[in-house]
Amino acid sequence: MYVVIVYDVGVERVNKVRSFLREYLNWVQNSVFEGELTKAEFLKIKSRLKELIEESHDHIIFYSSRDKKYLGIENLGTPKADTSNII
Amino acid sequence: MYVVIVYDVGVERVNKVRSFLREYLNWVQNSVFEGELTKAEFLKIKSRLKELIEESHDHIIFYSSRDKKYLGIENLGTPKADTSNII
Repeated sequence: MYVVIVYDVGVERVNKVRSFLREYLNWVQNSVFEGELTKAEFLKIKSRLKELIEESHDHIIFYSSRDKKYLGIENLGTPKADTSNII
Repeated sequence: MYVVIVYDVGVERVNKVRSFLREYLNWVQNSVFEGELTKAEFLKIKSRLKELIEESHDHIIFYSSRDKKYLGIENLGTPKADTSNII
C-alpha cells in the first residue's frame, strides 16, 4: 500500500518523529513523508507514532491507498532537498 | 472530487495562499487543506496557485480522488483550531 503522512508535532518531539519516519518512507516536503509500505509496517508505524507524540498536543494525518496511482499526486513548484539530517 | 493540498511556501506569500485556499477548502492542519471540489474548481485553484507562488522556491503537492473514502484518511492526536484568521 502507498501511504502519505503529514504531521504537526511539537518541536521537542519532531526530530524523533522525523528520524523514525525516514526509516520507512521518503521525505517529500516539510512535514510530509510518502512511500510504499506493507500493512504490517503501516500498523507498526501508527503504533510507534502513538508512543512518540503527545496526543493532546500533536496531530498526524494518514492518507493511504492500495496503489500510488489512486492518490492522483501532482506537484507544483520545486521540492526542497531533504537537508534535515545534515549536521 | 476530494482534494488534499499540502504546501511549503515562503513566509512572504503564505498568507495569500492560505486566504485563497480557505475560500474553497477546509483547513485541517498547519499547511494542509482538504475538501470537495468540482473539476473546474480544482483547475482554477491550480492555476491561481501557480500565480501566487514562486515556482523556483515554493512547493505544493496535490492529492486527489474521486471520493474521499478512497484516500483512507486516519487521524492520530488532536487537530489544532484554525486560528490563523483571528487578529
